[in-house]
Amino acid sequence: MHKIADVEIQHDIMVANRKLARNNQRLLDQNGIFAVDVLGAIGSGKTSLIETLIDHLDHKVGVIAGDVISKYDAGRFESHNVPVVGLNTGKECHLDAHLVKHALEDMPLEDIDLLFIENVGNLICPVDFELGSHLRMVVISVSEGDDTVEKHPLIFQDADLVVINKVDLAEAVGASVEKMVNDVKELNPGVKVITSSIKMGKGLDEIISTIESYVL
Amino acid sequence: MHKIADVEIQHDIMVANRKLARNNQRLLDQNGIFAVDVLGAIGSGKTSLIETLIDHLDHKVGVIAGDVISKYDAGRFESHNVPVVGLNTGKECHLDAHLVKHALEDMPLEDIDLLFIENVGNLICPVDFELGSHLRMVVISVSEGDDTVEKHPLIFQDADLVVINKVDLAEAVGASVEKMVNDVKELNPGVKVITSSIKMGKGLDEIISTIESYVL
Repeated sequence: MHKIADVEIQHDIMVANRKLARNNQRLLDQNGIFAVDVLGAIGSGKTSLIETLIDHLDHKVGVIAGDVISKYDAGRFESHNVPVVGLNTGKECHLDAHLVKHALEDMPLEDIDLLFIENVGNLICPVDFELGSHLRMVVISVSEGDDTVEKHPLIFQDADLVVINKVDLAEAVGASVEKMVNDVKELNPGVKVITSSIKMGKGLDEIISTIESYVL
Repeated sequence: MHKIADVEIQHDIMVANRKLARNNQRLLDQNGIFAVDVLGAIGSGKTSLIETLIDHLDHKVGVIAGDVISKYDAGRFESHNVPVVGLNTGKECHLDAHLVKHALEDMPLEDIDLLFIENVGNLICPVDFELGSHLRMVVISVSEGDDTVEKHPLIFQDADLVVINKVDLAEAVGASVEKMVNDVKELNPGVKVITSSIKMGKGLDEIISTIESYVL
């Protein structure tokens, strides 16, 4: 914002967050858990993708479901019979390591080996807040418009895996999937980009094998 | 966040913002300008709607284009030959009254009578930050999922006009427009809700006549 004091506090928060994130990762490592931070805008398909991965991955999955009101997504995950901890962020537009720390206290760590942390739906706020995860997956959809990538460079620069979802709708919404892929590659040449339609099953095998390759 | 000091500063910021917002509105009123704060998620169609309104409204329109990187949307508005001021918010996920104050300094106030202020694309952060506008229009699309409204109640409780866009895609994305309309009405019984497909021209006349009824 517009005050020195606020900038300083913001800096303190970031330092404290990084420390807590390192602690979270240590706890996860001690329990042999691989954690994936799942980011993306509202309606990009984060929840559906995680639901599908729960059913298809050969792992004991747990989910931390962060949202301004978490009960909706948490309920969807619970129907897949996996441990779920919902995190209500209220007016905060991102998860932070402190919230995840408390969620890990409520998660049966001995029963899982793969943890999905679904972040709050937007492409701006979560960028700077490490949570302690091992992989950052960004899920966007063509219906956000094919200028979404160039308009939100930071989140793509920091991603390990980018899923461009709902490609079956590309023609209907007038979006160029190729442009979106190229924009990601330009911002982050080393990143893995997968085009998908979770609804149609397209791209799912590749997402699964990519995540497996990281976990193993 | 997690510190008393931060909560206090947050409170100070909100008070300062409200004061600046009142000053902005006074300046707009002195110049006979009606201002519309346009909120909505990424890809909901905010920019396209404003572009269409510029071409169809019988007013001298100006636009303040806020975005994490503003040049893309600002460029789209400029092609309609109206005064545009772009506001880069960087890592901030909302406009505030202070940013709008500076944008108004760069806007030829004597040449316009209707101002659209396009906020940053998400449904969380902009809620608490009054800008000095006279009308709050929230634009969402069916492709965000038909649970978008119930998952983001605050922004709808504060809206004067809600546009549910891209209804032509409802079947393709499996969204119930009726549920979205009902959810808005439940949160905010007095609000005007218009279903639209800006691309197909559906709902446009109603949006135009609604805005005209406020301006006149």
